[in-house]
Amino acid sequence: MIVPRKHMQNNNRRAFIKKALFVTGGVALQSCQTQAPQEILPEAPKPKPTPLPDGLNQEHFQLHNPKPLALESLRDKVGMSPITSTRRLFVRNNLPRPSQDIVVHSDQWTLDITGVMNPKTLSLSQLQQLGIETLYAVLQCSGNGRAFFTHGPSGSPWATGAAGCVQWTGVPLSVVFTACGGIIPNMKYLTATGGEILPKDVPRNKSIVERSIPIEKAQQDCILAWELNGEPIPISHGGPLRLIVPGYFGCNQIKYVQQISATKEQSQAKIQQSGYRFRPIGEKGNTSHPSMWRMPVKSWIVNAYEDQIQHIYTMHGVAFSGERGIQAVEYSTNGETWIPAELYGIDLGSNAWRCFRFQTSSQENIQKIYTRAIDTQGEIQPKERIENERGYGNNSWLDHAFVLHKKEKNKENQDLDTILTQEKEEKGRALFTKEAKPPCGVCHTLDDAQTNAQIGPNLNLLQPTTARVERALKNGVGAMPSYGTQLSKEEIQTLAEYVAHAAKK
Amino acid sequence: MIVPRKHMQNNNRRAFIKKALFVTGGVALQSCQTQAPQEILPEAPKPKPTPLPDGLNQEHFQLHNPKPLALESLRDKVGMSPITSTRRLFVRNNLPRPSQDIVVHSDQWTLDITGVMNPKTLSLSQLQQLGIETLYAVLQCSGNGRAFFTHGPSGSPWATGAAGCVQWTGVPLSVVFTACGGIIPNMKYLTATGGEILPKDVPRNKSIVERSIPIEKAQQDCILAWELNGEPIPISHGGPLRLIVPGYFGCNQIKYVQQISATKEQSQAKIQQSGYRFRPIGEKGNTSHPSMWRMPVKSWIVNAYEDQIQHIYTMHGVAFSGERGIQAVEYSTNGETWIPAELYGIDLGSNAWRCFRFQTSSQENIQKIYTRAIDTQGEIQPKERIENERGYGNNSWLDHAFVLHKKEKNKENQDLDTILTQEKEEKGRALFTKEAKPPCGVCHTLDDAQTNAQIGPNLNLLQPTTARVERALKNGVGAMPSYGTQLSKEEIQTLAEYVAHAAKK
Repeated sequence: MIVPRKHMQNNNRRAFIKKALFVTGGVALQSCQTQAPQEILPEAPKPKPTPLPDGLNQEHFQLHNPKPLALESLRDKVGMSPITSTRRLFVRNNLPRPSQDIVVHSDQWTLDITGVMNPKTLSLSQLQQLGIETLYAVLQCSGNGRAFFTHGPSGSPWATGAAGCVQWTGVPLSVVFTACGGIIPNMKYLTATGGEILPKDVPRNKSIVERSIPIEKAQQDCILAWELNGEPIPISHGGPLRLIVPGYFGCNQIKYVQQISATKEQSQAKIQQSGYRFRPIGEKGNTSHPSMWRMPVKSWIVNAYEDQIQHIYTMHGVAFSGERGIQAVEYSTNGETWIPAELYGIDLGSNAWRCFRFQTSSQENIQKIYTRAIDTQGEIQPKERIENERGYGNNSWLDHAFVLHKKEKNKENQDLDTILTQEKEEKGRALFTKEAKPPCGVCHTLDDAQTNAQIGPNLNLLQPTTARVERALKNGVGAMPSYGTQLSKEEIQTLAEYVAHAAKK
Repeated sequence: MIVPRKHMQNNNRRAFIKKALFVTGGVALQSCQTQAPQEILPEAPKPKPTPLPDGLNQEHFQLHNPKPLALESLRDKVGMSPITSTRRLFVRNNLPRPSQDIVVHSDQWTLDITGVMNPKTLSLSQLQQLGIETLYAVLQCSGNGRAFFTHGPSGSPWATGAAGCVQWTGVPLSVVFTACGGIIPNMKYLTATGGEILPKDVPRNKSIVERSIPIEKAQQDCILAWELNGEPIPISHGGPLRLIVPGYFGCNQIKYVQQISATKEQSQAKIQQSGYRFRPIGEKGNTSHPSMWRMPVKSWIVNAYEDQIQHIYTMHGVAFSGERGIQAVEYSTNGETWIPAELYGIDLGSNAWRCFRFQTSSQENIQKIYTRAIDTQGEIQPKERIENERGYGNNSWLDHAFVLHKKEKNKENQDLDTILTQEKEEKGRALFTKEAKPPCGVCHTLDDAQTNAQIGPNLNLLQPTTARVERALKNGVGAMPSYGTQLSKEEIQTLAEYVAHAAKK
């Protein structure tokens, strides 16, 4: 058990936190902070209701993007149990998910295995006969916590809900390699390829969902899973077959996996070469920047109750550290004095999260409660996040504080409509439909431009701001390439203004 | 690890097993034996399709009774993972489930706690603030395996699918007792009362779902749970609050629990005094017979694959022993020579089940594969079941064999229609609607008798045989009282014939 620690740092609450969106305290504080601070969400989408896949219930989620789906679990809906229900688990796709047919006809799914002495193509049934293992692991998007960054990184503004802890069952990669005569010597990476349908007119490596991890990791504890929480993996979570890399960020857990290869080099895919890189703000990603592999130590409170007679808060939360597991969790009401929380439930292994609970007086005028986890290697969850271009890997305890009291919503920094000249509108539409290469309409639906593609988000539903479109055009985002070298600054500005306005028509 | 054992017993396959319903072998033997041998299911219900609660999918289940719901998980649908999905978990209610409102408005649920120094009524929210624990436990109906008994016991003919292993989260009973000043001295039992709506005209103790367990067990590891597999417990599984007695049979896991009491005596409810008793065939139940508390050591295969090129069967199964956990599992193709199976997945505690896997040659003409579990106290799953009136607690490895090859369905012992005289029909209808006390129509729907009650099964859907109705009338079943002393043999015979015929109209 960890004794309380006293830290002398000034509790420097930055301005943006002071302006945060607060919520009502009450007897059962179930509706805790489930959104990021308001002023750093100027681009929050206002989608029309859209049916979710796999029978998911909209009430448990915040929808960031309808297609490819980006669905955040509400902070207080993940429950108080170590294993998260599939029905409450976040969903994030890099490309639109394939047809439901591939899970209905899972017996027809095959996996190519190369970079081994005897390359093979195995059916799901053949994999199921090779060997079996069950493991418990946190599934977390690299961008979980992005909502707390203030520089406006591209991508969905996840707060805490792009994470869950689940049960996976499948065959160990080590068993598959052995069945294929072993790995060819000197291979350094395991490269896995997803089975999404790629957009036409976009080079394969710009759009394909393909990631590489160290080959030692692949041999150590990765599995090819066919069951999630005791059921065949549903389409939204990568069924019929998904690569599970325990302790690593979600981008490495390749859905609909159709090929695994032992390779000398990392994949040439954009999402490996420059994407999912932990890079300074303003820099382009390259292989010198750390890839989003192991998840660092992190914790947050998921719900809280207030006993208004005895003046006690009771709080529950989760804590994890990829490949390491958790030694202890502490909480603080001032960011200086730390008190141990109680862990409950059995330890489900070094890649699962631990649930914790604590009680504290509600009589003081507490506005926030902080938690920090300590992993089994003694690493302590840090106070500050590390600033980075894409808003990845946020594990700051300051950012993830649980906010207790309601204050007026901040109205600053809201997007203001501007007038779009007819000239700009026509130029923007031309760029959107034909002049940009590939044209935006190849991937996006936008009624005003009469395009109806479903590779990228439906812009009528997403309703992005000018700034968001501009950033996406300049830097690319997910499978979308950068147009920064192809289009001039003015063209990007015009196209962005056009999209922002047209989407709201 | 257990070394292979050789047993010298004659492999005495009884006649009824020879007549069993066999199924096709194939590359993926997913459709394994999910039903009991045909000739011991003469009374299998043929219900019309009926919507299931909580969005459950009929494809994963065999429906034994529509109301109160008795829904068996198909043998090959429980999956290959230690924790069973709620969507594939069997459902069994003693009485019709209460309104969905009690889970929608779970904040209004209260629990009375008596037999303690400071009796209290606590809300769900108050319980959630008292303390928290998560545990993993097998949930199994006492009658799981009843289908293999040959004397035709009353109740649903469960084969293997009245069992699953799940995650429960709630507050330990020991914490609740402490919060109430502790248990009054010399109390011997924990008595828990369900919140089902009781049928009118039936004495409380004849119908109420109320069970007692030893007070030491209650203090040791029982919890009052509000989450099942990471979600609020759905109505079909006892939400918003259920008593969990780890390692004990399902009848003790009181759903919709509204009262817990430390008591000197066991509950006076029929299901405690005479029901759920392990009693010789033909004897009435009483407190001298063992109550269905701890679950004995048991295992079965859930699915199988055949590699038709290499001639290998790959099989997966589950094994458990209440409060003890599993040390090893063995398999046999002849019931004499035993070979260790491989356990996989981490140990989720002494009340969870372990999953196992093994491979064996498919070249021999194997018809059945047997498994037997050995628990951590060294107890070995027995070959034979213990015969008992209600068909409880079957853990025979002979009965639970996995059947591999298809044979012609057995046509013997099928029910034959007989002619019902008009006189008998009128007398039967009179007994059904008014002469029996309470009349059958108070609880059952039967179109011919113009009754429409929903406490007991809808007889038009159940379509019971004469013999089944006769047994139920003589002995009672579940909440239904015995009419054995009130009605004459002839009256019971007439009433049974009437119901069997009328239900098929």
